[in-house]
Amino acid sequence: MIIVDLSGAKDFWKQEPDWAACEAAHKTLWEKTGAGSDFTGWLELPERIRDTELDRIVAAGARIRSLGRVLVVVGIGGSYLGARAAYDLLGTQGDGVELLFAGNGLSAVSLRDTIARLGDRDFCVNVVSKSGTTLEPALGFRVFKTLLQKKYGPEEANKRIFATTDARRGALKSAADAAGWESFVVPDDVGGRYSVLSAVGLLPLAAAGIDVRAVTEHAIETLKALNERSSANPAWQYAAARQALYRSGKTVEILGCYEPRFRMMAEWWKQLYGESEGKDGLGIFPASVEYNADLHSMGQYIQDGPRMLMETVVSFAKESACYPIPSDPADGDGLNYIAGHDFTQVAEIARKAVKQAHINGGVPNIAVEAPAMDALGFTELVCFFEVACALSGYMQGVNPFDQPGVEAYKKLMFAGLNEWK
Amino acid sequence: MIIVDLSGAKDFWKQEPDWAACEAAHKTLWEKTGAGSDFTGWLELPERIRDTELDRIVAAGARIRSLGRVLVVVGIGGSYLGARAAYDLLGTQGDGVELLFAGNGLSAVSLRDTIARLGDRDFCVNVVSKSGTTLEPALGFRVFKTLLQKKYGPEEANKRIFATTDARRGALKSAADAAGWESFVVPDDVGGRYSVLSAVGLLPLAAAGIDVRAVTEHAIETLKALNERSSANPAWQYAAARQALYRSGKTVEILGCYEPRFRMMAEWWKQLYGESEGKDGLGIFPASVEYNADLHSMGQYIQDGPRMLMETVVSFAKESACYPIPSDPADGDGLNYIAGHDFTQVAEIARKAVKQAHINGGVPNIAVEAPAMDALGFTELVCFFEVACALSGYMQGVNPFDQPGVEAYKKLMFAGLNEWK
Repeated sequence: MIIVDLSGAKDFWKQEPDWAACEAAHKTLWEKTGAGSDFTGWLELPERIRDTELDRIVAAGARIRSLGRVLVVVGIGGSYLGARAAYDLLGTQGDGVELLFAGNGLSAVSLRDTIARLGDRDFCVNVVSKSGTTLEPALGFRVFKTLLQKKYGPEEANKRIFATTDARRGALKSAADAAGWESFVVPDDVGGRYSVLSAVGLLPLAAAGIDVRAVTEHAIETLKALNERSSANPAWQYAAARQALYRSGKTVEILGCYEPRFRMMAEWWKQLYGESEGKDGLGIFPASVEYNADLHSMGQYIQDGPRMLMETVVSFAKESACYPIPSDPADGDGLNYIAGHDFTQVAEIARKAVKQAHINGGVPNIAVEAPAMDALGFTELVCFFEVACALSGYMQGVNPFDQPGVEAYKKLMFAGLNEWK
Repeated sequence: MIIVDLSGAKDFWKQEPDWAACEAAHKTLWEKTGAGSDFTGWLELPERIRDTELDRIVAAGARIRSLGRVLVVVGIGGSYLGARAAYDLLGTQGDGVELLFAGNGLSAVSLRDTIARLGDRDFCVNVVSKSGTTLEPALGFRVFKTLLQKKYGPEEANKRIFATTDARRGALKSAADAAGWESFVVPDDVGGRYSVLSAVGLLPLAAAGIDVRAVTEHAIETLKALNERSSANPAWQYAAARQALYRSGKTVEILGCYEPRFRMMAEWWKQLYGESEGKDGLGIFPASVEYNADLHSMGQYIQDGPRMLMETVVSFAKESACYPIPSDPADGDGLNYIAGHDFTQVAEIARKAVKQAHINGGVPNIAVEAPAMDALGFTELVCFFEVACALSGYMQGVNPFDQPGVEAYKKLMFAGLNEWK
């Protein structure tokens, strides 16, 4: 299970974490009595998936693998970042396909880059959109559907399209029913940023060869554990600590990790926390760093800039790989005393040093340890961050499940586009 | 030339930009009379390079291309981000090699990923380190030097190693001289984050097929233009505007771009500004977003969160690619009225809508337009951001050329490692 260590944070809050408020938020969340409670289906989602869609997801993943070597996943925001985060962290496994992501922007350069990377390989498309009318993925889907039709003809193309969308209504659901695309459900009671453990994330991951049955079973266990009413609950610790730090003037949170593969997990986390808490003029600003690289870029600011930062560092208890440091007869760099040790050992010493240096510099540290950088570690991190985010949002006094501000640019954009009508 | 548009920012500062202070900073910078003036050699660097190293850089780039299909660039911080940013933006050109980056972290997973990506292709190594003793690149270099020696034998390996380092002293310079590696200069009067237009950046870019002669010539022109004493100077506009916004309570700056290839340019920018200004308890926190993707993740926070944000958006006047939006007989998404138009046209409408929405939401907007997403546009952005950063730092009252805080973790880390001695 996730372990949260607050020893590096406890000297920085002006008032102790408010465990009573955290307990109240916990009750509000799990008893579904708070703002946005219609969107807390993610708490039961893994059980529901296991009992309904999971077999079909696993089968579709196998079919996608049999049909080609690439799955183009078309989606944006919560219909994109979860699968991307997991895939970047875990990679293609076994006979899984490569995942390419599209429909998350409007850049023609980027679109052509993706098409070039696809090359002439056989592929399928998974379009992920609750409504089917969100501009970026709708246009991206038009492109890749057209490419499928050109390559395989309309009938075969239809067998290579998988739609993850509303169960009953909407443009994409209608199109899927009309064309016979196999479709999967974006649940009504789960917002995009909490949806990675639904078909939204699980279908691409299954295609990539990741064991989504194990993910689902482990999510059930993890969510059960996170339902514990205790200040030892890691979600309570994270939520209560960051709110205590926020009240103490720490307005920017940096999520750091020493594994470059974690980068898109941090992007997923930014959406989760930024979109859940950034409203009503409130919210901790979510930022991220990749260590050690960013010790030599953002390190100076973190060490000596304004003291408005808190830092949350994710690490993995079990090493996923090792690599011994080579000896060098010339020893020009004078580092032969390290040779024979492993990169993982050096990295551990670096991590400890950075933590201490940043604490010395006035940056509170929250340490989050997952068991391993594998599918189960990913699952625990997802459940942990989701539950903690809901608690933290309730403690902050906002609805952690809406995102009214996202509409502002869309309205203006469609007003502009409507002039073409 | 770079165009800065402050029309989206001018309603947000409490006091007008301080042009007198900007002029004073300009004088301090160009007359080299301020703090850190020993490190302003980047102002004349392109001319110096043209007259000294450029021919050798171009020739070495050609040799690297003739020796294999990959160049592994080993470096961290300022010895990494500039070349990485340019390469991600521009890609391999013509018969250029692929660049892989190493030595910027301690993750064994990441190291093995890079080695796997290298595969059995022929390659060279460019190690970039002023001292040769910075831990991360020193260990990374040990690994790839060993791989070269195993693959090619010691003699041939030496012909495939290119060292960019101090002109006269240091561990790497000594090793290069002893082994006969061709070496290039990290100038004494240029800090890492201002070094991309030295051999640090130019050698990898030359190997990747980018026209570094054109880059250098264009940098000379651009720097000359940026030496203009005028509030119409784009560097003045950016520096004075962001300082005016900072004094008005905008403590976080988001650098956004609609081109996903710009991502590492934003990372380079974060080091440049974070490291130059983040000291003495001062400095705007530099963050970045990738649009449109992040409109569906960070968009909510930007629209409705605390009003401590300013946003700087980089765009390119000339499109690098186009892609027409396909028509769809079924028109399930109802977007056929857009079909036939180009992605680039839709993107432009989206950009305008987002700018207006964010301004409406209380986020000041600074628009930075480069002529094109090509080598010359890259060059202008580099010169512009560097000059503006120096001005902004002086206006903020700090030395924009030191980075004392970066030593803090290193000291603790080496103290830990020393126990192995």
